[in-house]
Amino acid sequence: MGLQRATIAVDAMGGDYAPDEIVVGAIRAAAELDVNLLLVGDRERIQACIDEHGGADTERLEIVSAEGVVTMEEKATSIRRKPKASINVAMSLVKEQKAQAVVSAGHSGAAMSAALLRLGRLKGIDRPAIGAVFPTMIPGKSVIVLDVGANMDCRPKYLEQFALMGTIYSQYILDVDEPKVGLLNIGEEPGKGNELAVQTHKLLQDNSAIPFVGNAEGKDVLSGNFDVIVCDGFVGNVLLKFAEAIGEVMLNIMKEELPKGWRGKVGTALLKPNLRNIKQRIDCAEHGGALLFGVSGVCIISHGSSHAPSIFNAIRMAKEAVEHEVIEKIEAYNQQHREEIKETASAN
Amino acid sequence: MGLQRATIAVDAMGGDYAPDEIVVGAIRAAAELDVNLLLVGDRERIQACIDEHGGADTERLEIVSAEGVVTMEEKATSIRRKPKASINVAMSLVKEQKAQAVVSAGHSGAAMSAALLRLGRLKGIDRPAIGAVFPTMIPGKSVIVLDVGANMDCRPKYLEQFALMGTIYSQYILDVDEPKVGLLNIGEEPGKGNELAVQTHKLLQDNSAIPFVGNAEGKDVLSGNFDVIVCDGFVGNVLLKFAEAIGEVMLNIMKEELPKGWRGKVGTALLKPNLRNIKQRIDCAEHGGALLFGVSGVCIISHGSSHAPSIFNAIRMAKEAVEHEVIEKIEAYNQQHREEIKETASAN
Repeated sequence: MGLQRATIAVDAMGGDYAPDEIVVGAIRAAAELDVNLLLVGDRERIQACIDEHGGADTERLEIVSAEGVVTMEEKATSIRRKPKASINVAMSLVKEQKAQAVVSAGHSGAAMSAALLRLGRLKGIDRPAIGAVFPTMIPGKSVIVLDVGANMDCRPKYLEQFALMGTIYSQYILDVDEPKVGLLNIGEEPGKGNELAVQTHKLLQDNSAIPFVGNAEGKDVLSGNFDVIVCDGFVGNVLLKFAEAIGEVMLNIMKEELPKGWRGKVGTALLKPNLRNIKQRIDCAEHGGALLFGVSGVCIISHGSSHAPSIFNAIRMAKEAVEHEVIEKIEAYNQQHREEIKETASAN
Repeated sequence: MGLQRATIAVDAMGGDYAPDEIVVGAIRAAAELDVNLLLVGDRERIQACIDEHGGADTERLEIVSAEGVVTMEEKATSIRRKPKASINVAMSLVKEQKAQAVVSAGHSGAAMSAALLRLGRLKGIDRPAIGAVFPTMIPGKSVIVLDVGANMDCRPKYLEQFALMGTIYSQYILDVDEPKVGLLNIGEEPGKGNELAVQTHKLLQDNSAIPFVGNAEGKDVLSGNFDVIVCDGFVGNVLLKFAEAIGEVMLNIMKEELPKGWRGKVGTALLKPNLRNIKQRIDCAEHGGALLFGVSGVCIISHGSSHAPSIFNAIRMAKEAVEHEVIEKIEAYNQQHREEIKETASAN
């Protein structure tokens, strides 16, 4: 698969600005990235969007029909009542090996349920997790935080599995030679934190396959000192949504304060290009989607509010995950890990 | 007590820049705020600091001797082996009614332990909580988040008590007529979140004394739509430290990017005063200390890295809490609440 061109199923109907913004992002991806795309959804509406935006390379971009969509107001379990909904059809394409990845900006719970139902969990993984890539203080350096919302009340071994999946992602997708894994906690010392953190700390320390360097506090998330940070999905989700909002808060405060007075107006005009760079560095939306880890296929979950550039980035993330065989590598590790446990057990 | 001048015991030895920065902050507070201060610690060192900084109004600022300090490296329980340490002596001053509040930038766990040991819990409060005041997007509007670090694994009724204490603080100290209380969660709907959140939601909804408006997501913390947000101390601590760091991250990115190129240099020079305003609005350090809720006395816990301005702000927070009789109001509510429960019980 590493040499073949990746085929990615894009849920054209999911998201606040679907199908228009999804289609525009996909047209650009088909033109600029070396990928095949299957746009899943209402054929007529998708075709109309394509035509409106000047057409697309039909060799690279095909439409696959689906009926209906799981809306944000519905429960995730609606996917069972809507087998032909775009997210279900997209997942089935991966199941049938017609695609290797799914990108969706629709209902994230529905996407996860559909992935679990159609693709199933990877062997050795108890709970899939959503991983989000955050920018850090160090230009060009990212950190992957997981779980950011799939699992509320976690067991220590779930976090151990998240750490492993994050490590593989960091190595092969974010190109970090020796990833540093941290456990989100309230202090540096091993005994700190809630029951989950205390127990997880022990597991991570004892697992030789995880390059665990210790606890990461809230202030360390963006420091660039960690490449992977694990936490339960409740804390991770609060943090993610806070981080996304704070970027906007900062930009709003800057917009309000900078142009005050005549010096402010002149200065702000002069600084326009630099301000654009700042926006790019602090805006989480620029960083594409979140990856659903632990199911048998690559699934990128984009923000409901995604515009075309985010969809483009999400497709690129999917392509990279496919080409670097992230799923296969997680499976291979789990296989090896199970064998080691067996050997240790029979040796004792 | 409302009309009498508040007397505040300041732990002069606690904090990274003690005693110097603590003393400087206290000298300013004694001069500018209508308070009496008791500076607790090494008499000679404190006096030397006072002299170095041009003396102080001795009617308003007295030194109270203490021996030793609980350092950041020690465990909180060290307070038991060091009865004469500055934080213990400061708490005793409140116990003996020689002061009505304590301000400390020292070991926060030690401060909490000392408060519990010397002052005790308020009746009706199971666990004290640390409340931190965050700025919001709306200029001049703050939100108090609690707990930010005192309690790791919480029960729903602890969060209910936090909500009540936060409401009283918001009403009387932050001057909010009708505070809106939110429960930190991963979505708006009542059934969302971890076990703790689901259970707490029910309790908050059923408690008529708490102006509960629903779940607050990570993105809502700084929106200004909530006045009080409750969560367990693990999530709250991660959030607080993340928020404090992100302000710095943003300022660093601005410092790096803004002066790039000649337009950048000229523009940045013109914008200096406006940039100062931005720093003030986004820097959490400007917002003073955190309040320890639920013990029989006003305790303000400042950051270990506090400089004089933060100490000044913390002293002002303490003065306001004393003058508005926050402790007495929490006690009164709990008294009334217990009576209501009794009445309901005997009526049934």
